[in-house]
Amino acid sequence: MIKTDILIIGAGPTGLFAVFEAGLLKLKCHLIDALPQPGGQCSEIYPKKPIYDIPGFPEILAGDLTKNLLEQGKQFEPGFTLGERAETIEKQEDGSFIVTTNKGTQHHAPIVAIAGGLGSFEPRKPAIEGIADYEDKGVEYIIKDPEFYRDKKVVISGGGDSALDWSIFLADVASEVTLIHRRNEFRGALDSVEKVRELTLLNKINLITPAEVKELHGDGKIEAVSVVKDGETTKIETDHFIPLFGLSPKLGPIGNWGLEIEKNAIKVDNSLNYQTNIPGIFAIGDVNTYPEKLKLILCGFHEATLMCQAAYRIINPGKKYVLKYTTVSGIDGFDGTRKEAPKAVVQSIN
Amino acid sequence: MIKTDILIIGAGPTGLFAVFEAGLLKLKCHLIDALPQPGGQCSEIYPKKPIYDIPGFPEILAGDLTKNLLEQGKQFEPGFTLGERAETIEKQEDGSFIVTTNKGTQHHAPIVAIAGGLGSFEPRKPAIEGIADYEDKGVEYIIKDPEFYRDKKVVISGGGDSALDWSIFLADVASEVTLIHRRNEFRGALDSVEKVRELTLLNKINLITPAEVKELHGDGKIEAVSVVKDGETTKIETDHFIPLFGLSPKLGPIGNWGLEIEKNAIKVDNSLNYQTNIPGIFAIGDVNTYPEKLKLILCGFHEATLMCQAAYRIINPGKKYVLKYTTVSGIDGFDGTRKEAPKAVVQSIN
Repeated sequence: MIKTDILIIGAGPTGLFAVFEAGLLKLKCHLIDALPQPGGQCSEIYPKKPIYDIPGFPEILAGDLTKNLLEQGKQFEPGFTLGERAETIEKQEDGSFIVTTNKGTQHHAPIVAIAGGLGSFEPRKPAIEGIADYEDKGVEYIIKDPEFYRDKKVVISGGGDSALDWSIFLADVASEVTLIHRRNEFRGALDSVEKVRELTLLNKINLITPAEVKELHGDGKIEAVSVVKDGETTKIETDHFIPLFGLSPKLGPIGNWGLEIEKNAIKVDNSLNYQTNIPGIFAIGDVNTYPEKLKLILCGFHEATLMCQAAYRIINPGKKYVLKYTTVSGIDGFDGTRKEAPKAVVQSIN
Repeated sequence: MIKTDILIIGAGPTGLFAVFEAGLLKLKCHLIDALPQPGGQCSEIYPKKPIYDIPGFPEILAGDLTKNLLEQGKQFEPGFTLGERAETIEKQEDGSFIVTTNKGTQHHAPIVAIAGGLGSFEPRKPAIEGIADYEDKGVEYIIKDPEFYRDKKVVISGGGDSALDWSIFLADVASEVTLIHRRNEFRGALDSVEKVRELTLLNKINLITPAEVKELHGDGKIEAVSVVKDGETTKIETDHFIPLFGLSPKLGPIGNWGLEIEKNAIKVDNSLNYQTNIPGIFAIGDVNTYPEKLKLILCGFHEATLMCQAAYRIINPGKKYVLKYTTVSGIDGFDGTRKEAPKAVVQSIN
């Protein structure tokens, strides 16, 4: 059982900044995220895209923001449970919570802060009859380990960066790569489009457009797909069918935790500290809603900060906390490090 | 008469970031600040000190934060009235406001956002009988132009960086510099303390410690001060007496604008958008107060952002605004510039 002060569900920018603010109050954090790395959408969906509205950064790449936030919090030694999804929550008699992931990992904390962004990102699935029966039997929606496809035949479908990039990558790994897209036009980085064109001319990618996979075949696992192009159907033998149609956000199991939900977001008390209808559970960042809410990263930072103060009061009842400015008081890391502004020298002249 | 959409009182970090957020909504800002440069405390009091709790910056000098915020907002061409203090406000029949400074400059806007920080910084004055009568007649609490003291005799009192630094500077300008401090110990940068020691040995600074100025003499203007050291009183002839005891924040004339005040701060509605008890006047950043308020720069950023949305709705009644992400939509500056993320290429391969 993992024990911590504040259990944060979601390791996007809001959750990562909460680690820092909690640390200033000497509270320890542990983060759970369904994605395999911290950063949330910033790392998974648009790491190379600039954000212009983070205060103090006229421009910052989303991936760099994640890196900076990890750096800012690292002296407070956060724990991470990554690649697992928070599934259930149980309130204990003493008011604390046990949160269990889809892989059975258990976490115990007096405070839970849901910083789940727009939710777990689930792959968009094509509407092909019986596709669910082939999941993990040759149909994958996310490529976790490209080595899995070594010397196999793969059919990829999709028209965006993922489809382009994985087709390029697997051209050197798989024995045969077929890329199918319902349009002739691809939407991706210029050099990816060029590279796919080149590999197609070299016969390392078998490009079929405009076309669609309409049927799946196989006994207990995928053996072939039927592709329709210009009204004609062709059957292509393959070991894997990988539809890469992007990710779509879902609130997921958190939606069943008894929290008050409105428009797929968790209602919180913004007049105080972003607590939900369940005392001890807070929701911060894009996952919450309140009057005049804006789903902006900078708002998540503020919400995380006020949540930490409330967490402090719950964990330390009756103890008075006086806000200290980092510029004045410096920062004592849990790892023994200390950061502080150069102090004025007190020195006698006479 | 200066006209704008949002008139911001205070050009500290919160006010500067409001310029950017207003710009995204195509609203123009004008800022008034009593200090001669933007940045508020960050520029005036601790430009070289690191701040550790600005999200995304493990460490940033206060002066650099100001520079970045000015850069972030500059394409929205904010106007500035600097070195003047907002003195009076008059509500017009149409609900808009006219704000007049202590120098008589008039500003007209439908929205006023007070981002006044801890207030105007007023010099701390020593408790010497009759000192007020000598103000601007040889007694100055702030050194505006060192040339004013050329070939004059000056007595400086104080034990911090200002007293040290100005004593050093004026040693080459004034005909005679006396530095008086009630302790032997000075609190300042190491090299300033060393330099004063050196100039004292060279007889370029007349250092008297531990000592205090107890009396002022002169007919219509300062002619001498009485200094008490070890119980003995000495009279020192001088043209100027400059007590440099630091700045202390005062809410100032804003306190008389009919706003609801609590503990020297302006009460706002934090459950919506940081509006004060007067519709159309908002208070953001350290100057406001509400339940669980934290006087942190990052909270000011959030408050500024929500204030701008409310301002938009007041200025554009009935018009629906759909939040656009800067990463997706880019930024169109009022100066004709455009910033945007590199777009995915849509291109045919076949």
